[in-house]
Amino acid sequence: MGPRTGARRSTCPVACALEIVGDRWTLLLIRDLIGGKRRYGDFLASSERIPTNILADRLKRLEREGLISSVPYSEHPPRVEYHLTPKGRELGRAVEALADWGLRHFPGTRRTVWPAAQRGSEAET
Amino acid sequence: MGPRTGARRSTCPVACALEIVGDRWTLLLIRDLIGGKRRYGDFLASSERIPTNILADRLKRLEREGLISSVPYSEHPPRVEYHLTPKGRELGRAVEALADWGLRHFPGTRRTVWPAAQRGSEAET
Repeated sequence: MGPRTGARRSTCPVACALEIVGDRWTLLLIRDLIGGKRRYGDFLASSERIPTNILADRLKRLEREGLISSVPYSEHPPRVEYHLTPKGRELGRAVEALADWGLRHFPGTRRTVWPAAQRGSEAET
Repeated sequence: MGPRTGARRSTCPVACALEIVGDRWTLLLIRDLIGGKRRYGDFLASSERIPTNILADRLKRLEREGLISSVPYSEHPPRVEYHLTPKGRELGRAVEALADWGLRHFPGTRRTVWPAAQRGSEAET
């Protein structure tokens, strides 16, 4: 099933968005990608400790839905890295709104990935 | 466990936010509340058909975390309705970003709850 071709259950844009990114792990992955992470091992190293089976599943879904693309960086052994597409990068506003909300309401949290994201966004979209 | 008192697993504001609202149903409930829904039956009537056990669980969690408050509107039988607190209403920006993204990428979706939300936000926060 390619992006935009599946039968959506709702005419609500929020519900449709959440069918793709409506789980904690997917939005944390988008956060990591916005912050510049690109490789499988980088995502595994994030402090939330995403399980490998969930990581593999979510990367597959994000690619199928056109939010990321995989780019080979090694042939032997075969390895890819993941890049946000413009469609994926547009989710930055939602992640940023969650970050602002978290910063306001959870003392001790601090913004870590945003400077890199903002530097990167001009060049890549 | 009250809001702000639980041991958070992360210093990332996005991760902390997603510990509370990082699932599809919770963000759909926030959408409904922003759109003016207040009663159990109203949430059940939304087209995504939230299961009753999930609805009860999410309302309890949102209240415990200080995102909604319950206000009695009937004594016999006892009934409450739910109102967003200012902390809950501040999530509107994240929901709106998801709505914008959904509108852009899912043909046939249309914005339904926002006019009411925008009317209500001035008076209630």
